[in-house]
Amino acid sequence: MKAMLIAGVIAGSLVSLPAAQAQSFAPAKGEDALRYRQAALFMLGQHVGPLAGMVRGDRPFDAAVFQWNAAEVDHFARLPWDSFWVAGADQGKHRMKPEIAREKDKFLGMAQKLQEETGKLVAVSRGGDLAAIRPAFAAVGAACKQCHDAYRAQ
Amino acid sequence: MKAMLIAGVIAGSLVSLPAAQAQSFAPAKGEDALRYRQAALFMLGQHVGPLAGMVRGDRPFDAAVFQWNAAEVDHFARLPWDSFWVAGADQGKHRMKPEIAREKDKFLGMAQKLQEETGKLVAVSRGGDLAAIRPAFAAVGAACKQCHDAYRAQ
Repeated sequence: MKAMLIAGVIAGSLVSLPAAQAQSFAPAKGEDALRYRQAALFMLGQHVGPLAGMVRGDRPFDAAVFQWNAAEVDHFARLPWDSFWVAGADQGKHRMKPEIAREKDKFLGMAQKLQEETGKLVAVSRGGDLAAIRPAFAAVGAACKQCHDAYRAQ
Repeated sequence: MKAMLIAGVIAGSLVSLPAAQAQSFAPAKGEDALRYRQAALFMLGQHVGPLAGMVRGDRPFDAAVFQWNAAEVDHFARLPWDSFWVAGADQGKHRMKPEIAREKDKFLGMAQKLQEETGKLVAVSRGGDLAAIRPAFAAVGAACKQCHDAYRAQ
């Protein structure tokens, strides 16, 4: 009964959570896990596109569009990490360096850093001030790059 | 100024929206749009997996896990549709039937129906009652199947 109550509280608390509260997810099969994490990181990158365009001045700044895409980036920054550890998810076409297996804590620390920065980007984007957004967006890019430099083959 | 105010209101209103309020998105390049919609629908399917397992009794019902995966299904059910109409997104490996191009309204109507059903599934999952969840889950499956039967090649 206590467990049911706790589950109910958790379920209830999830109802109104924003996209930012997504959790990491891992399909059971290695091939699905590989495809899942690649899909999540591809979609993340696609939503970075409009943000980068606005930050660089290649497209007009639109606060609502920026904010929505930032929320999607934050959402996708939370989903793929567990999928790196599914048996068989290192098989097939990918650019994951084998160092990941030996440096799980360091890798997950970088994933955590990314989520902190995407969370900050979502928060600052609420203000609609591009000057304030720029450094937050740069910090997201730096978090991406740090992990890619360490763990993604060219 | 009026436009800025409206944009500000929209931006503000987006802040607290749950994952369910995701919008359809389309990368500019056809190859990206194809990959984006395929990624979104693949990820949707992966989050259906745990729901199906619980509905069928293959895994223990966990209200919080059900609810989170239902929210992800709902999220992914809103993202891919605009990507079907990007120039070049019909090139490459896919199972999209050419009928889609001639029946856009019908196709988008089915996409809308899916979103209605995933929204209902999210709502009913808040109650944590598997008996109430079953028909809502079945309705999501029926919405998937209707569109696949019409517009996805075997």
